Amino acid sequence: MTSIDTPPNATHELLRSHRSIRKFVAEPLSHERVSHIVRSGLSAATSSNLQATTVIRVTDPDKRAAIAEVAGGQRYIETAGAFLVWCADLDRTRRACAMGGGHMTSGMTEQFIIATVDVALAAQNAVIAAESEGLGICYIGAIRNNPQVVADLLELPDHVYPVFGLCIGVPTQDPEVKPRLPVEVVLKENTYSAEGEADLIAAYDETLREYYRTRTGNNKVSCWTEEMARLTEGERRPHMRAFLADRGFEMR
Amino acid sequence: MTSIDTPPNATHELLRSHRSIRKFVAEPLSHERVSHIVRSGLSAATSSNLQATTVIRVTDPDKRAAIAEVAGGQRYIETAGAFLVWCADLDRTRRACAMGGGHMTSGMTEQFIIATVDVALAAQNAVIAAESEGLGICYIGAIRNNPQVVADLLELPDHVYPVFGLCIGVPTQDPEVKPRLPVEVVLKENTYSAEGEADLIAAYDETLREYYRTRTGNNKVSCWTEEMARLTEGERRPHMRAFLADRGFEMR
Repeated sequence: MTSIDTPPNATHELLRSHRSIRKFVAEPLSHERVSHIVRSGLSAATSSNLQATTVIRVTDPDKRAAIAEVAGGQRYIETAGAFLVWCADLDRTRRACAMGGGHMTSGMTEQFIIATVDVALAAQNAVIAAESEGLGICYIGAIRNNPQVVADLLELPDHVYPVFGLCIGVPTQDPEVKPRLPVEVVLKENTYSAEGEADLIAAYDETLREYYRTRTGNNKVSCWTEEMARLTEGERRPHMRAFLADRGFEMR
Repeated sequence: MTSIDTPPNATHELLRSHRSIRKFVAEPLSHERVSHIVRSGLSAATSSNLQATTVIRVTDPDKRAAIAEVAGGQRYIETAGAFLVWCADLDRTRRACAMGGGHMTSGMTEQFIIATVDVALAAQNAVIAAESEGLGICYIGAIRNNPQVVADLLELPDHVYPVFGLCIGVPTQDPEVKPRLPVEVVLKENTYSAEGEADLIAAYDETLREYYRTRTGNNKVSCWTEEMARLTEGERRPHMRAFLADRGFEMR
């Protein structure tokens, strides 16, 4: 019998070794390699076979620089072997629907969920594929700092929105794995109950405090609950609602 | 050099062998096994370490029967080795925030995206972990047919919503892998362009028509664009907006 900390096979081990990579060999990955990774990504489950994912690889250095600026100056967006923008795409659905003799009803909240989840499942599969080859990755949620600029740069039509970016490349750093909340906090049975969580979270605070203090680079004095307090204070990206509505995701 | 159809390693191969499983050995997976799978899921990237995922394993037969009914009578929800409801959880964030001396601003569209993507990434990692052990899985988006019933059964607090269900178990069927859109349709460079897509989609229609005609079980005469036309006609789950708003996801 294995303990909860001992993964039962090599795939579990691969999954548990994930950490974001932010330093890469500044050489492009081949188109074939990226295609392979995305192709394996697309094998993920998709709601009713909707396949609402479009991936735009950005190779134009000016566009990469502009997107890096949107993302608050994350330079590895420019240098990683590949930079991909993962888009939730209901425009292809609309066109397919017309080809099939129908007319798509748009703007539903449910469609937004389906498309966003579709993209995330495919992207995570692609991430696992990339990491299985020894590549490193970093998701870039910060493209949503100014999604309109990204949409303009990539000439996205209506019913398409950029969910996140993804850097992929050969790592030139080997950072520590960031500890996660214990599975006992996350996995519940039959009902949601927060009983006992405060103690486990307090213990996790100490684990994370030690991680922040001792990790290689970007050390700080902090813990999980303090990070969460900082993170959720104030309105986060308040432009998203109007941006999405303008693109045809009205959230009805 | 490998062709695009030849995965370059065993992990790619595992990812590409995915298909939904809907027939399972009717015996529960051990708690330890499910914990391992979820634990590996939680190693996925999470936005700013938010970890907005809560997983509720449903073992109560009455609750499983009620959820199966919500999902339109998918009986494998009752029989799979494990049935998990993956929830986007900002209530834990709210509590952590208070422990860290802050006060969470809620209701932002951006938070909804972050939490939903967090859950999807973790779930997909867990799926890969399960499939690496030879288990089969099926996502259950249809719990959103009536998410209020699910929320009530699982006693979800505000700021938590059930994103999807997941059946995991030992498969007793071996269905074909469903062909996906060719990667050439999905992967673009620098700009969104639908040029040439119509022909590729028409070809995919024929591939899928053949798949539906010849697959083992549930055969039908259809193709992708006809399925899409059927799927996107009319308002899909129009209750989602109000349900989410009522739970504290106001989408500001």
